[in-house]
Amino acid sequence: MREVGIVGVGHTKFGKTDQDFLTMLGEAALLCLDDAGVAPGPGAGIDQVLVASVGGGMVNRISASASALVDTLHLCPAMAECVENGPASGASAVKLGYMAIASGMCDCVLVVGGEKMNGKGGAAATDFVSTMLHPEAEYAYGLTLTAFVAMFTRLIMEKYGVTAEDMARVAVKNHENAMHNPDAQLHKRVTLEELTEGPDLERKNPLVADPLRRYDMCPMSDGAAAVLLCAMERAERFVKPPVRIAGIGQATDTHVVANRAVPTDLLAVRLAAQRAYAMAGLGPEDMDVAELHDAFQILEIVESEEVGFFPRGEGHLAVRRGDTALGGRIPINPSGGLKAKGHPLGATGVSQVVEIVRQLRREAGVRQVEGAKAGLCVNFGGFGNNVVATVLTRA
Amino acid sequence: MREVGIVGVGHTKFGKTDQDFLTMLGEAALLCLDDAGVAPGPGAGIDQVLVASVGGGMVNRISASASALVDTLHLCPAMAECVENGPASGASAVKLGYMAIASGMCDCVLVVGGEKMNGKGGAAATDFVSTMLHPEAEYAYGLTLTAFVAMFTRLIMEKYGVTAEDMARVAVKNHENAMHNPDAQLHKRVTLEELTEGPDLERKNPLVADPLRRYDMCPMSDGAAAVLLCAMERAERFVKPPVRIAGIGQATDTHVVANRAVPTDLLAVRLAAQRAYAMAGLGPEDMDVAELHDAFQILEIVESEEVGFFPRGEGHLAVRRGDTALGGRIPINPSGGLKAKGHPLGATGVSQVVEIVRQLRREAGVRQVEGAKAGLCVNFGGFGNNVVATVLTRA
Repeated sequence: MREVGIVGVGHTKFGKTDQDFLTMLGEAALLCLDDAGVAPGPGAGIDQVLVASVGGGMVNRISASASALVDTLHLCPAMAECVENGPASGASAVKLGYMAIASGMCDCVLVVGGEKMNGKGGAAATDFVSTMLHPEAEYAYGLTLTAFVAMFTRLIMEKYGVTAEDMARVAVKNHENAMHNPDAQLHKRVTLEELTEGPDLERKNPLVADPLRRYDMCPMSDGAAAVLLCAMERAERFVKPPVRIAGIGQATDTHVVANRAVPTDLLAVRLAAQRAYAMAGLGPEDMDVAELHDAFQILEIVESEEVGFFPRGEGHLAVRRGDTALGGRIPINPSGGLKAKGHPLGATGVSQVVEIVRQLRREAGVRQVEGAKAGLCVNFGGFGNNVVATVLTRA
Repeated sequence: MREVGIVGVGHTKFGKTDQDFLTMLGEAALLCLDDAGVAPGPGAGIDQVLVASVGGGMVNRISASASALVDTLHLCPAMAECVENGPASGASAVKLGYMAIASGMCDCVLVVGGEKMNGKGGAAATDFVSTMLHPEAEYAYGLTLTAFVAMFTRLIMEKYGVTAEDMARVAVKNHENAMHNPDAQLHKRVTLEELTEGPDLERKNPLVADPLRRYDMCPMSDGAAAVLLCAMERAERFVKPPVRIAGIGQATDTHVVANRAVPTDLLAVRLAAQRAYAMAGLGPEDMDVAELHDAFQILEIVESEEVGFFPRGEGHLAVRRGDTALGGRIPINPSGGLKAKGHPLGATGVSQVVEIVRQLRREAGVRQVEGAKAGLCVNFGGFGNNVVATVLTRA
């Protein structure tokens, strides 16, 4: 199998944009090509473009946006497809791009993930996100993702002693990290006290779905991110040294959450990480940094256990010790994570890879994890029904 | 690069269904697994499921349907993604499945394409289909795909002498072929006279967008189709001999139709076919049968030229001679084509492959092309902005 590297990254400022969907994708793509040192056009040598998005059709009413993007970037007759896998769409597109190169069918693949979620009211956005639940067994009954996570959180709290303060600690850490990421949506330092106590708690951090408060989950975001993949043997024509995609693992779990044997396990996270480690010939102890999918702060805690960083039920203790902060044993979400960097669904899996590439290139500035040689991304689809893990290493 | 074969096919009866979207996908998948001689479940050895659909989100309000399908078929923890490329989504999914196996990441991939387009009124469906036009340069101005094809048709008629009768001849042929395809939507024999003359022409074949009449285009369809791909070296565990995917080619053209140098050329069709032939080491003269994308009957004529079956501007003369009918020089659309078999967008590219597999296995019954050893599929996205061509051969 041919080895594949990442030779360019691009990222818009996450938040709320006035750009249309296609222009936003184009911005991330142009930043990525510029980072790789190539100009848009047929001379870029791009064989395939993959666009990751969930709401391109439902929210933005565009189909075949990959074809439109190829035209916008003057890349015709390059091949183009859109990829959708709920909130894991971004990593899925990176995986399919990897396969395209590993197969020998392509040398160079541009992957762009993006979502424009604002402009819809809160109820409409919640409904859109809920379409990733099982259509007959869950969505049809009005279940929302937030409701699922609330129930999951309550179980985890009772089983392992995780507290509201532990979840708030994750938020505080990720907001702090985001202060140093210019692409992050939220540049706002918060304290544990603000998020957990005081007479005006309900105003500062209102309850959304008991026990979840606003700061226990990510914001609604617009944004796009892009990576340029290339066969390692062809990577020297780009200006920066490639970062190697050392391993990719993916696993599905029952789509119907009620059918899971142990409702507090995130089995697909565990399997996906194991597969990615096995392909890379590395283990959790070799990871220097990680971007985990903290759409809800409880997920960062449980994922940090499932990927093997901490024993089961002890992820929250690691947070209390500061193990996952910058400077800690294994910094998690130096980018600010979905919590503070933002979570434009289709962009997120690509954005995680962008952050780890920047970390491994030592381009992360104040949030740099010193000496980072290997990193892990976990992109989590639905309520853990489809998870992609990616291991990146310095080439 | 590992060789890839098709070891199973499944196809629902196209038309109008009361099934929900997911059940319809599941029916095609189960028929496919049954054809391959394996039962659903982890024992099937399926590493990856790809679902091709355009309206899963916009029309059926489901995202991540591939994850739901994996669960429905008891295939967890197999990998899963949805693929969208307008009306070429099906062939795009076959291509990505091919890459997954050729890369060595997978041995066995299930590809299911499906669309449930009915249940929406005519205007809503026309609008949904129009979302594949360029979002700012075309769709925003109310342009529809039918309007584009009408303008294209008028140019072709003036340039090459194609007549309304020629388009009707294609419809008559494809309706005749569909009489012998139990999965076809329309089982209705029509005559050239009925479609082109008589005092009640406007009732029998009303004008839709001058010069296009109802029988110059495909119907609105629900339906799904599935193929099981496998590394050739692992194919012996299935009950039927594999059909080889000998070549896959894809090309994009300008998404904005007005930007094309020669508006009567379908450049992406030509390039995609050339690439597929080159990969297969075959040429148009080696093809014994073809499924071309006749969403509009004029497209079958022009595509038959672009893929090299006939000289430019002479495709309609071949139709008049009967070259493309069963028993002719190169039978086109023995399945009935999109015209009479139906065109559930995401299903079509997969359905075309199903028909060629049946032809190469000599399972096509009355519509069998005798001695067929190689066949071509052309799946046409948008207004020719993204085209996938596939060459299949008997292994």
